[in-house]
Amino acid sequence: MEIIDGKLMAQQLKNEIAAEVNDLIAKGERPPHLVAVIVGHDGGAEAYVANKEKNCLAVGFRSTNLHFDENITEQELLDEIYKLNDDPEVDGFIIQMPLPKHIDAQKVTEAIDWRKDVDGFHPVNVGRMTIGLPAFKPATPSGIIELLRRYNIPTKGKHAVVIGRSNIVGKPIASMLMQKAYPGDCTVTICHSSTPDIKEQCRRADIIIAALGKPGFVTEDMVKEGAVVIDVGTTRVPDSTKKSGSRLCGDVDFDNVAPKCSYITPVPGGVGPMTNCILLKNTLSARKNNLPG
Amino acid sequence: MEIIDGKLMAQQLKNEIAAEVNDLIAKGERPPHLVAVIVGHDGGAEAYVANKEKNCLAVGFRSTNLHFDENITEQELLDEIYKLNDDPEVDGFIIQMPLPKHIDAQKVTEAIDWRKDVDGFHPVNVGRMTIGLPAFKPATPSGIIELLRRYNIPTKGKHAVVIGRSNIVGKPIASMLMQKAYPGDCTVTICHSSTPDIKEQCRRADIIIAALGKPGFVTEDMVKEGAVVIDVGTTRVPDSTKKSGSRLCGDVDFDNVAPKCSYITPVPGGVGPMTNCILLKNTLSARKNNLPG
Repeated sequence: MEIIDGKLMAQQLKNEIAAEVNDLIAKGERPPHLVAVIVGHDGGAEAYVANKEKNCLAVGFRSTNLHFDENITEQELLDEIYKLNDDPEVDGFIIQMPLPKHIDAQKVTEAIDWRKDVDGFHPVNVGRMTIGLPAFKPATPSGIIELLRRYNIPTKGKHAVVIGRSNIVGKPIASMLMQKAYPGDCTVTICHSSTPDIKEQCRRADIIIAALGKPGFVTEDMVKEGAVVIDVGTTRVPDSTKKSGSRLCGDVDFDNVAPKCSYITPVPGGVGPMTNCILLKNTLSARKNNLPG
Repeated sequence: MEIIDGKLMAQQLKNEIAAEVNDLIAKGERPPHLVAVIVGHDGGAEAYVANKEKNCLAVGFRSTNLHFDENITEQELLDEIYKLNDDPEVDGFIIQMPLPKHIDAQKVTEAIDWRKDVDGFHPVNVGRMTIGLPAFKPATPSGIIELLRRYNIPTKGKHAVVIGRSNIVGKPIASMLMQKAYPGDCTVTICHSSTPDIKEQCRRADIIIAALGKPGFVTEDMVKEGAVVIDVGTTRVPDSTKKSGSRLCGDVDFDNVAPKCSYITPVPGGVGPMTNCILLKNTLSARKNNLPG
């Protein structure tokens, strides 16, 4: 059994990105520039964006945060997006969700030029990914693919069971794992809230992707000996032994499941750290006018 | 066991469409207008387009076929597409594939205004469908959904196994069946050429969608008692007992599989006739400026 070290892999990826940025700068070119758009005030969003900025600076990117008042109108926000679309010095940008209720989030997402949509949520990117064309792909599933690749985990012909059908994790990881590619070429089963026999479905899996957001949902009896278990859950649960009073909890009962696995990701320190780096990787691709393959 | 009558369902759908067209005309509005773009000469493509025209006229649509010489340049073809995009009297159009080799088919597909892409192949439509938003969806999977609906076949919580991961059938039907909707809300497994145990995967299915193009591939031992079997195969095989010397053959060994099924589609007369009608249904939606839900 091997515990996948997401922190280490993320550091490796960041080093690779930083080296490419250094090459760009050595050639006299400008570094990649990532912009985050934040509307109103939300503690979680602000912490996320601050972390994004720290990561950008660590790899030599330019980073800009655009804060708008929560009373900005939808049209004013759309106009700001059009400016970013047209700005040749902006390679990629993200809109921090959730947006205030008077703004149609889907409309805003679709207003982004898909070639700058480094979050990979624009329908063109979703569609291109599904068809198997180069596209910006969402951070979490891309991070999982990156971990599978960096650990040389065999995937061809393996049966992957995905728990959860969200647009940001379940559906895209299912889509990526079924493509004729490495990592990929899996038989893929997607389970969700209407699946009556999730336990049995999981028991047959060579690879389990747990992305439903229920702490400890995947128990030892659901996991085949030698399976690969990827835990996407990040639920904050109370924990009086921690200084903060809480801890992050995955969807997998790690202590009991881990001994049966060939590979498993911990929470924290598994998928999470990789996820943050994909945004950098996508922005570097945008800077080079390439779409991730 | 009930044999799904695709011809009858297609006729019902055509009657419903014709009634809506009559309503439009009674209100003094113009009928829906579908354009087919054909480059060069291909017997199969021409037969398909002739059939499309016949269907259009049967429901009161306006139908136009634009034939271009096989030496048309990519740019000239793109310019023709831009004209169709801008023409307010064209509701939807299709580009007959395959295109000559000097033309980039993907570029041509992406040049279509997705709001007129009644074939549902534009990345925006693929992406919107994946996310669960209204979109034009490809004809064959939409036809399957229509058959499931018209026969009131229960799908929620059922396990659907899709054989084949093509962009025009396997992937989109998997995507539709996993959405929280009726028909849909299935646990979905997608199998393909790299799946080592297709027989076992199928044996567990409540619903089998066979879309791999191998005549008679799905045999009786692969089908659970009471399963729903949808056969998308249409391979032409030699048959000396037929006047034409050949017949259409499905992916399912119909005679031996049918007795075990609760529902099964025959070939011909199952999915095929419905497929042709979806193009009309999508064009009617385009005429009404609605996207199919």
